[in-house]
Amino acid sequence: MKKIAHIGIAVSNLDEVIPFYRDQLGLTFNGTEVVASENVKVAFFKIGESAIELLEPLNEQSPIAKFIAKKGEGIHHIALDVDDIHQRLNHLKEQGVPLIHEDPKEGAHQNQVAFLHPKAAQGVLFELCEQKQEDD
Amino acid sequence: MKKIAHIGIAVSNLDEVIPFYRDQLGLTFNGTEVVASENVKVAFFKIGESAIELLEPLNEQSPIAKFIAKKGEGIHHIALDVDDIHQRLNHLKEQGVPLIHEDPKEGAHQNQVAFLHPKAAQGVLFELCEQKQEDD
Repeated sequence: MKKIAHIGIAVSNLDEVIPFYRDQLGLTFNGTEVVASENVKVAFFKIGESAIELLEPLNEQSPIAKFIAKKGEGIHHIALDVDDIHQRLNHLKEQGVPLIHEDPKEGAHQNQVAFLHPKAAQGVLFELCEQKQEDD
Repeated sequence: MKKIAHIGIAVSNLDEVIPFYRDQLGLTFNGTEVVASENVKVAFFKIGESAIELLEPLNEQSPIAKFIAKKGEGIHHIALDVDDIHQRLNHLKEQGVPLIHEDPKEGAHQNQVAFLHPKAAQGVLFELCEQKQEDD
């Protein structure tokens, strides 16, 4: 694992929350993006080599809407940056680690991502993230 | 804010959980430390410029024991690295951000730490952390 790619935080309303991260914590705000596959709108904040991503559900079908309904707003997942997501997923499968995605799918910024099952880590949801190469 | 210092994760039993982070995720295990002021034993894993800290309560008085009793095991807090924790706390106080600690106290590795109140950030518990200088 190279670094923490980002921490994903589920929120009900981005506009209400962005000022805390931008103005009070003083993080660098890098704009928003709709990730249609997850039915979320994401706000990105840079911090060191990592990021904090605020996730607002676009509709009731969003996994983030279901998370907020069940647990309330709060930290949703931790994303770890990897060089070769296929190799990592194969390693985890060989070790019997339960996965949500056995194969990567496209996330924000066209990165390749896959989630481990939270039962792998006492309820903590980990995402593996292979960042899109700029020269692709 | 310079970087994510660490993510703190509450667990019931370090020995059961360390192998997942060390062997399956492949993070660098940097040993354990008892933080008496918090009644916790902490296991440290390096990842990039950041760390993951697993927090096991030593007794029922530990804030981590209370967290697990209420919410179950899971992510407890996000610690952000700052240059001048006093200046940061004053800035937050001036902005009306609710704090648990108005003045820093000593955390793991003799760092100076202070927690914001979780109601500042939709239930997410943020810690500010000024790392002890090696030449102090």
